[in-house]
Amino acid sequence: MQMYLRSRAVCVRLETPNHTTSSLDANMQTIEKTHPKFLELKTRLTEINNISSAASLLYWDQATHMPPSGAAARGRQLATLRQIAHEKLTDGAIASLLDSLRAYEADLAYDSNEASLIRLTRRLHEQAAKVPAAFTATISQHRAASYEAWAKARPANDFALVQPYLEKTLELSREWANFFPGYDHVADPLIDASDYGMKAADIRAIFADLRQQLVPIVEAITAQAPVDDACLHQTYPEADQIAFSLKLLAQLGYDFQRGRQDKTLHPFMTRFSINDVRITTRVYENDLSQGLFSTIHEMGHAFYELGNDLAFEGTPLAGGISAGVHESQSRLWENLVGRSRPFWQFFYPQLQAAFPQQLGNVSLETFYRAINKVQRSLIRTDADEVTYNLHVMIRFDLELDLLEDKLAVRDLPAAWNERYRRDLGVVPESDRNGVLQDVHWYSGIIGGAFQGYTLGNLMSAQFFAAALQANPEIPAQLEEGNVHRLHNWLQENIYRHGRKYTAAELIERVTQAPLSTTPLVDYIKQKYGQIYQL
Amino acid sequence: MQMYLRSRAVCVRLETPNHTTSSLDANMQTIEKTHPKFLELKTRLTEINNISSAASLLYWDQATHMPPSGAAARGRQLATLRQIAHEKLTDGAIASLLDSLRAYEADLAYDSNEASLIRLTRRLHEQAAKVPAAFTATISQHRAASYEAWAKARPANDFALVQPYLEKTLELSREWANFFPGYDHVADPLIDASDYGMKAADIRAIFADLRQQLVPIVEAITAQAPVDDACLHQTYPEADQIAFSLKLLAQLGYDFQRGRQDKTLHPFMTRFSINDVRITTRVYENDLSQGLFSTIHEMGHAFYELGNDLAFEGTPLAGGISAGVHESQSRLWENLVGRSRPFWQFFYPQLQAAFPQQLGNVSLETFYRAINKVQRSLIRTDADEVTYNLHVMIRFDLELDLLEDKLAVRDLPAAWNERYRRDLGVVPESDRNGVLQDVHWYSGIIGGAFQGYTLGNLMSAQFFAAALQANPEIPAQLEEGNVHRLHNWLQENIYRHGRKYTAAELIERVTQAPLSTTPLVDYIKQKYGQIYQL
Repeated sequence: MQMYLRSRAVCVRLETPNHTTSSLDANMQTIEKTHPKFLELKTRLTEINNISSAASLLYWDQATHMPPSGAAARGRQLATLRQIAHEKLTDGAIASLLDSLRAYEADLAYDSNEASLIRLTRRLHEQAAKVPAAFTATISQHRAASYEAWAKARPANDFALVQPYLEKTLELSREWANFFPGYDHVADPLIDASDYGMKAADIRAIFADLRQQLVPIVEAITAQAPVDDACLHQTYPEADQIAFSLKLLAQLGYDFQRGRQDKTLHPFMTRFSINDVRITTRVYENDLSQGLFSTIHEMGHAFYELGNDLAFEGTPLAGGISAGVHESQSRLWENLVGRSRPFWQFFYPQLQAAFPQQLGNVSLETFYRAINKVQRSLIRTDADEVTYNLHVMIRFDLELDLLEDKLAVRDLPAAWNERYRRDLGVVPESDRNGVLQDVHWYSGIIGGAFQGYTLGNLMSAQFFAAALQANPEIPAQLEEGNVHRLHNWLQENIYRHGRKYTAAELIERVTQAPLSTTPLVDYIKQKYGQIYQL
Repeated sequence: MQMYLRSRAVCVRLETPNHTTSSLDANMQTIEKTHPKFLELKTRLTEINNISSAASLLYWDQATHMPPSGAAARGRQLATLRQIAHEKLTDGAIASLLDSLRAYEADLAYDSNEASLIRLTRRLHEQAAKVPAAFTATISQHRAASYEAWAKARPANDFALVQPYLEKTLELSREWANFFPGYDHVADPLIDASDYGMKAADIRAIFADLRQQLVPIVEAITAQAPVDDACLHQTYPEADQIAFSLKLLAQLGYDFQRGRQDKTLHPFMTRFSINDVRITTRVYENDLSQGLFSTIHEMGHAFYELGNDLAFEGTPLAGGISAGVHESQSRLWENLVGRSRPFWQFFYPQLQAAFPQQLGNVSLETFYRAINKVQRSLIRTDADEVTYNLHVMIRFDLELDLLEDKLAVRDLPAAWNERYRRDLGVVPESDRNGVLQDVHWYSGIIGGAFQGYTLGNLMSAQFFAAALQANPEIPAQLEEGNVHRLHNWLQENIYRHGRKYTAAELIERVTQAPLSTTPLVDYIKQKYGQIYQL
């Protein structure tokens, strides 16, 4: 018993703020009495992490540099690595190790690195082990086939092409949920997989509350004449946009020794190590905001994982807690910082210098209003901060209707259009810009795919409010292009913890309150009230 | 018995020249009676290939795009994938499958795809299985440590730094050889691993023969005033060199749908699929020939693997036979084509157009003589075609002396310098440009590291002579920038066979003669006799 207490004490000591230099490995070297089964568990987890990281690189390469003809082999390579990682995670040896560590774990502080790793591994192992390997393979193959069908159906504007795939996806999604019996709502296990701890009922309540507060704001704004955003839609050469984005990333503290930015069709962030977290961006020559804000968005995701305690390297503790928490970090930088007036007070002159012909005669105010233009629109990913969450709610409700069998897949396009008419006052002229616009249902599972975006928006405002309360000088620093105070606060309160806490625990810990719609609504009222003189 | 005969017949039919469209998979679909154990073997081999290809991508990324801080994790990821691939190749299940396929194999035509795959797999499995996993891990760790020491020792010009590592490498090399008892010379198993079927005694005989013929040529040339190659050593901006190399690759038929070129410190070729074979190059702004010829060299390697029968995808039959045969393909394009007069008759005007200030007033003849300048020099990789093999022989002989315990590692620098003085008439002013110049001994094994370069040079001339005999119009076509006839001949006679034959079998099959020094010496006499009026 004494040996556990001794190592526990060391672990607790390492939980003090000296987090960036501590390392679980270094830590282990100083602890002679760490449970040998824990070390064995960690070795196995690192092996799994090595395989998963290699799979991530296969994917990154496919999206960035791979010559087109490499695709067929790449699919097989990815499938092999994912299968091996899955086998190793669900291995009975992991279950045995976790079992033999129960007493050890009970003696550790809840938020020690060791207890957190055991707890998280138990959850991941149990979740993976509940789904039979054969089913995982089936769903994997179906996702690939369904994605291929969607990639043809969207440009062809032909929902009928994907309908049978989507019907199968719905069936598989329900089957998947049934591997986790005891749920309140069939969507709960699906939601839980991306936003652990959340249930359909919780989200419905939060969304209803948010909706009620957003709708009057949207109505008040869209009753006014639309903002002129023509300045964003001039010709912005790709190379100049890339050059500006790299310069911006460097100034905001993205470390090119520990990451890089490449071009892709769909921007994403990926991690091969806490010391190698890469982002991608896309550039439209006729829309400056696409490249600009996708760069800042992915940078926010990257900051999160780059800021993980280095002690988590090679373990599941590295990464972000959930879809929602991860999105909170990208949206915080993209919106709360990247679409703010103080931020552009500093950076707009640089942007003008990079694009003198396009922006030399455009005032900061005009630019600021353009990048914050609110409108009733069709495409979620292009939506402004005010209407964005209404797009998410439509999808979330439709997912639940499908899973509850209240809505048939064949009726989905009509239901989609009707919801857009009712909620946003616009109707897609085609399924391409309607039900076919998002890849999620066509390359994944139905249920749990969208709520994270709105949860992330809510958290981003709640976290940012906490950061401002602790550091009221943040906006003044942003006006000087200085993000250190904000970055340090995020590092200390969010980034370094990786996946140690649940989303609910982190929110409570950081903001001393549960998740709430108030900070986001307050932020929107204040910012857009000013822009639109509400 | 009948079922085997039937599938054999199909395999034989598929061996006819219609090679590029046949596929082992498609093949398999039409053969109902293929031995189920063969299909099981192939499934396992494809899984191993998927893992190895992922490891290759980890390496490629490390050498091209990886941010510096990603290195530590990358090393662990590579080690994990290589270990898993090794475990799966040495798995007892592979041995059992190979055993149960003996009767089946005996009934297949020797050069059928199936027989060739079984034969090659047996060799690779047995070789891998003879070396204990623990020893493989030891040697792997030692190689990484030794490489790190060398990376510091070379710039510091400090052989003492690497001496203990090299002593350990020598010890491990001997140990490795001893896992393959029954050899004539301790270097034989080491040579066999990269140039299967060759022995130290064979190579010594070939090298002695070649040496005797080369030395008088070197003496006759170096008695003359040195050629002026100043035109290559002006300032050639990197971006312009890269642009030219990409244009050249495209014209020579390198398909950017199936590959790409990136920059690295040390150029290499790597394959992730027969449809994704990439090359890297390096560029020196003060030496045009570095970028130019490393591009053409790696392109030659890539042509070989891109030309493999697509039926070999995902199996060990994809790739090149041996170090020597692979080098023959790179050197054929680099030297026999890329340093030839007909080639530059077509491409030199393009090069002049790309670098008008540097080459506008330089004649083709001056340029041609500059890229073929023969000199007594210190650095193997920069050596001309005539002296290059003398550099290789020095290393080969020293390797054997070390392995035979005739030479101690501590005496290696002096022995190196003495051999350079004797063989090339120059003495390194420092170990940096002497015994420390090549990475091979410091990141690998001693024995078998260098002979492939000279074997490759010999084969390149022997293959090219056969191509010319079959297609005397090749030089005239080169003058028009047309490489189709040559490419087709290589495709038909060499590329498509992948690793089906041994080097000796391929040479005999393609040139109707065993490996000989005559074609290379004849080529050198003819070409350099003309340049130097011998």
